[in-house]
Formats: sequence, C-alpha cells, structure tokens
Amino acid sequence: MPQLIRITDPADPRIAPYCAVRERDLVGRDDHFIAEGEVVLQTLVQSERHQPVSLLLDEKRVDGLSAITNRLADEVPVYVASQAVLDGIVGFHIHRGILALGHRAPAPVPDALLAGLEGRALVVVLMGISNHDNLGGIFRNAAAFGADAILLDAQCCDPFYRKAIRVSVGNTLTLPHARLSPDDDVVALLEKYGFTAVSLSPNGEYRLAELKRPPRVAALLGTEGPGLDAAVLARTLTVRIPMAPGVDSLNVATTSGIVLHQLTQATGDE
Amino acid sequence: MPQLIRITDPADPRIAPYCAVRERDLVGRDDHFIAEGEVVLQTLVQSERHQPVSLLLDEKRVDGLSAITNRLADEVPVYVASQAVLDGIVGFHIHRGILALGHRAPAPVPDALLAGLEGRALVVVLMGISNHDNLGGIFRNAAAFGADAILLDAQCCDPFYRKAIRVSVGNTLTLPHARLSPDDDVVALLEKYGFTAVSLSPNGEYRLAELKRPPRVAALLGTEGPGLDAAVLARTLTVRIPMAPGVDSLNVATTSGIVLHQLTQATGDE
Repeated sequence: MPQLIRITDPADPRIAPYCAVRERDLVGRDDHFIAEGEVVLQTLVQSERHQPVSLLLDEKRVDGLSAITNRLADEVPVYVASQAVLDGIVGFHIHRGILALGHRAPAPVPDALLAGLEGRALVVVLMGISNHDNLGGIFRNAAAFGADAILLDAQCCDPFYRKAIRVSVGNTLTLPHARLSPDDDVVALLEKYGFTAVSLSPNGEYRLAELKRPPRVAALLGTEGPGLDAAVLARTLTVRIPMAPGVDSLNVATTSGIVLHQLTQATGDE
Repeated sequence: MPQLIRITDPADPRIAPYCAVRERDLVGRDDHFIAEGEVVLQTLVQSERHQPVSLLLDEKRVDGLSAITNRLADEVPVYVASQAVLDGIVGFHIHRGILALGHRAPAPVPDALLAGLEGRALVVVLMGISNHDNLGGIFRNAAAFGADAILLDAQCCDPFYRKAIRVSVGNTLTLPHARLSPDDDVVALLEKYGFTAVSLSPNGEYRLAELKRPPRVAALLGTEGPGLDAAVLARTLTVRIPMAPGVDSLNVATTSGIVLHQLTQATGDE
C-alpha cells in the first residue's frame, strides 16, 4: 500500500518537481519525466524499465485509482491535494487530476537495439520530427501496428516530454527506441542488420500501395516540409503516397499510420 | 489594391471581431469565422464560396503577403498593427501574425450535396467527432485523397472553428460538406444515392485491407471511444483495422487517412 501524503501548500518542497510544469518541461528534466492521466499512469506502474518516483493526485481521484496505486512499491509517495492546490502547483487547470514523476531507464544504443531483433521485424526511423504531437502520434501508431522498435535522429524531439507521452497514450514508455548520434549512418546500420530501408517521399519511385513487405523492414519518415535528406533517399527504396492535385502533404503521424497499415496488413498477414 | 488601415489601439471598434479570439471562439460567431496563417488566408481569398470580410496583419507581414492581398476586393479593409498591438487585440502571442475574418456561405443540405455527385464518388461521414484537431485532420486527409464530400452528424463540432480550419490546412473552407439533422437517416440517404456505406469498427466483419472499392462509397467514422451506433453498424458493411494485442485504438484522424488510402490507392487506381 502506498503512503498518502496530503499537500496543502503549493510551495511544499516535496512536490517541487510538479511546480510550474510547463516551464520546467521547457528546461528539461534530465532523466525524469512527467506522466499524465490514468492510462499513462497505469503504463508507468506496469513498466519493467521505467520507475515511478512519486504521484500527485486530485483528492477526488484517489479512490478510483486504488487498483493502480496498490501496485506501487511502499516507498513511492502518493501526494494528494485539492483541485485548487493542484492547479496552483502545476500552474494551469489540470482537469484529469493525475500526475506522476517517473525516472527513465537508460536508453539502448541503436546498434544494440537492432541486434536484439530477430527474424521478421519492423522498425520505424524518424528524422527531424520536432513536433511532440507528431512524435507521440507516430509512437501510438507504431504500437498499434506492432512495430518492434523506433530509431530517432539527433534532431527529433524527446519522446519523454509530457505531451509526447500523453499523445502516444503511454507508448513512448513501452515501445523500445534509441537515439542516433549525428555521426551515425542509419542506412548502413539498417543494412548491417539486414533491414530493407523504405523512405517515404512525395517523389518516391514506387507507390506505397504497390509495396510488398520485406520480412525485415524499416520505414523512414522525415518532416512534412523538407522531408528526408537527398543522401538518404538515394540509398533507400523510395515510396510515395499519391495525392489529389493541389494538396501538398499529409501530416507525418497520419503518414506513419498509412505506411504501417500497408506494411503489416495489406500484404495478407493479420 | 486593398486599403491598409493602421491600428494602434487594441480597443479600436473596427477590429472588435478579432478581440479576445479564444473567448469569442467559444461563444460562436454565427456565420463568420477566423482564418489564421498564410495558407488558410490564401485559400479564403481564392474561395468561390466564402468571403473575406477583413484582414488583420502584423506590420512585418504586409509586404510579403502582397501577392495575396492584391487579389482582395477594394472594399475589404486590411488592418495593420505592430506585434504588440496585435497580441493585445487577440489576447495571446500570435506568432504567425496573419488573421482574417471570413463570412461563410450557406451550407448545402445533405440530400442536395449527394444528389450533385455523379458516377464514381467518395464520401466521408462523421458521427460524434467533437475534437477540432481530429475534425481538421480528417478534412485534411479527405482533401489529400480526393474525397468529394463530407457529411457531419449533429454531434460533430464546427468545421469553421478557427483551430479546425487551421489543422485542416484550409480544407474545411474548400471541401464540400453538409450537416445532418438529428432526424436524418444517413444510411437511408446514402442508399438513396447508390452509395455503399462502409463503417469502421474494432469488431468489423472484414479486414480493411481486404476491401475492394465500390465505385460509390461512403466511409463512416465515429468517435474513438464509443464508436458508431450499433444501429448504424447493423445496416452497413463493417470493417476493422487489426491491431497489436493490448492496443485499444487508433486516433480517428489517422484512421481516416488509412481508410482513404485503402479506398483510393490500394485497389490499383492512381
């Protein structure tokens, strides 16, 4: 059973990591992160890798969450506050009333992550995805279609940012992912482990719908504007999603869903 | 050439429709709407149906937008303000610096909209989509894949809400759509005009990837939680998108992109 600790002062030092959540998000939290909402909290509590450090709950939510909080280790404090104190702590009206501070496990290196994938495998490679909504949406889609891992280049934003976790419905906490360094040659790395690299591009050589799934496949996605580097496109199999005249692009998270559906469903597997 | 009118007082009555934009959005604007950003402004100025009433621009943006503003009728005022005055008017920092007030054309009725579609046609029917991001994202996808029209039930939110227009990249202003009344029987209406109605549901009878496109087809989408009504599912062809175990659903806008890709691309047409 967790300890319930009543907080009545928004300046209480015990809940300092929750103060002014948005401003602190911008500064960064080293190896900690904030999880919001019931589904994400449940994911964190069940995680075998990341650790809950503390919870901060609206007093009205405590009873309803007991099935989750009862799974916490005894030493994890559960801070409880009124809605008004809670809003004062975080700096805005937090209508879900459920926050947790988590400690993230060390990330694997890309080489080790790919080395651990056997046989039939599906990887998503993200380059320059700097919008947390899009990053979270892509993790959600990758989980939905059973992707095995995600690689992020150095320009991608942080999957442990609060909003990215929330939009991913907790999947940034569960789906294995690794960060490429600026010097990594991701195409060579994918080749080393036998992956066929498929790049999405408006001028891709093949229509996505024609694509048959290679057993080991990596889908590469870039930003909506500039897209993937020409050097990457030149070394990979390029596919396009044809669009109506005058429409310039799809949202990159939507694109990821279409690509993953094509790779996992449209070739006869279920 | 439009008239440029300098605004120095955020309380100037001429720019009242732009004051406290978010609060006014919540109240509603009758048959007016706010368009934001360059792409949406261009869409509005080119629209054959909706009319620009006025523009409000950051003084730094005026020169760069002359190709667009020169297309305006002489009587459309272009209000110009400094960034500080602009932020004071709208009530938050508006970094794009481009706003327009538009007047919306009367919406067609669903029967007339469907009656005007000939031959091969693709319609999207939305039921209970109350989130503006999702609604805007669906319009964006529908435009990208060349859908001919969208029908919205009485529970859907307003496609002319500022954020829905922005997320749709202006496509809520261009893609023909009509609002169903609570008494309308949309399945009967689709049948009347020869459409095959395809409902997305986690328990759908067929896999989406097996679906061959009927020449006249309507894709029905409900909310992520409760989904489409059982009464609608019972009268339509139901399809599912199989997902990895333990993952409950895709975002509805992403789902629309996957469905529209399947219907327009995966059956051999381009």
